[in-house]
Amino acid sequence: MTGTGPVLGRALRVLGAFDARHPALTLSELARRADLPVSTVHRMARDLLDWGALERGDDGRYRVGLRLWEIGCLAPRGQGLRERALPFLEDLSQVTRENVQLAVREGAELVFIERIAGSGAVPVLTRVGGRFALTATGVGLALLAHAPPEVQERVLAGPLPRFTELTVTDADEVRRMLAHVRTRGYAVSDRQVTMDALSVAAPVHGEGGAVVAAVSLVVRHGTTTAQALAPLVCTSARAISRAVTTSYG
Amino acid sequence: MTGTGPVLGRALRVLGAFDARHPALTLSELARRADLPVSTVHRMARDLLDWGALERGDDGRYRVGLRLWEIGCLAPRGQGLRERALPFLEDLSQVTRENVQLAVREGAELVFIERIAGSGAVPVLTRVGGRFALTATGVGLALLAHAPPEVQERVLAGPLPRFTELTVTDADEVRRMLAHVRTRGYAVSDRQVTMDALSVAAPVHGEGGAVVAAVSLVVRHGTTTAQALAPLVCTSARAISRAVTTSYG
Repeated sequence: MTGTGPVLGRALRVLGAFDARHPALTLSELARRADLPVSTVHRMARDLLDWGALERGDDGRYRVGLRLWEIGCLAPRGQGLRERALPFLEDLSQVTRENVQLAVREGAELVFIERIAGSGAVPVLTRVGGRFALTATGVGLALLAHAPPEVQERVLAGPLPRFTELTVTDADEVRRMLAHVRTRGYAVSDRQVTMDALSVAAPVHGEGGAVVAAVSLVVRHGTTTAQALAPLVCTSARAISRAVTTSYG
Repeated sequence: MTGTGPVLGRALRVLGAFDARHPALTLSELARRADLPVSTVHRMARDLLDWGALERGDDGRYRVGLRLWEIGCLAPRGQGLRERALPFLEDLSQVTRENVQLAVREGAELVFIERIAGSGAVPVLTRVGGRFALTATGVGLALLAHAPPEVQERVLAGPLPRFTELTVTDADEVRRMLAHVRTRGYAVSDRQVTMDALSVAAPVHGEGGAVVAAVSLVVRHGTTTAQALAPLVCTSARAISRAVTTSYG
């Protein structure tokens, strides 16, 4: 963090102290997680509260404020993508009653943009706005297969995280899977994240054909096959591609 | 903006320069809208890009970055509320095929947290993350009816915005409508926002009974009555109240 000096960097560290497991923090927790003195965080938090980037509940804890959520809604790769994709994700959800997910790549990880939980569908580990490894999941493999070579090599240089005994953590084997994804047009993750889930994912193409997102169906292992799900997911991905290339933020 | 000095305030002005009608800005547009020198904004934008609060497209324009959207997703009154409410909003949408909306009060305005557009439903003026006046809309009237007296008086001190010839802009008449909302448990906006829309809204109660949000159905005027929609909306609002009071951010 240079240029505008340490103040902006510190403010961003205060915001970055919040995550899914720490959505509400006391002043001292906030200071500890941002690695800043309490007095500094206290001053900064006052300004962030005034602006609405933070809120404070009756319990005195700080939380991310609605104003920051409002500004975040203007991110084309977040809410913008989500709004264009949502009708097609809902169609997929209503037809299958299974879990439907939409994700984008951010550096060497993925971020879940939307998730519609199927009624009675297999439980999944995802959260909207949450990050995950690019290997192992269906959407991750679809995104990684179409990432620039330097990103692929950075990810494959490992170590590759293991979630189940079936998670592929050998770089050469992942390379073969990625080639396979590009050839047949969809990615399969069979019990690589949890032992009861099968995921099939397809890439969403933006302006100029670049892959900008991936959509997946996640079903209970043993109830159907990847081959049966693939046409559904690929059709949905194409519909979303069409929607995002029709003018985009 | 005091305390941490002008740097943080300027950074927040840079972020605040983006809105729904200006989601992508050139450096000079950004400087003009933030009312800051181009050189200052250039330095600041570099740090915000590094952190991911801003992104820059192939067209050179700045946009709100995915990282800010991720942090924004941690706002309990934004994504947190949305996730708990979404299954019930989807039920309401699937049963009625009409527009379903969820909003919270932020000061003297409302912010739309979710909107599900009905297939073939009447067009509405809302956008997720967008703001609107508390008078005129169904959700606005439901929220204002349960706002603290000082907020009500601030809003009613006016001027009250007019959208159609039927928009109620007389403070005393709005006061009577608010009393009516509290008595019967739901709010009605009949052609007050657009001449073809009827909206019925009900309050969502959080911990301790406080009103934390409002949910509405917006249908084409003349197709049904507010009395027919009210039980549906009120039932949905109760289900969401139950979901949000079962542990909340």
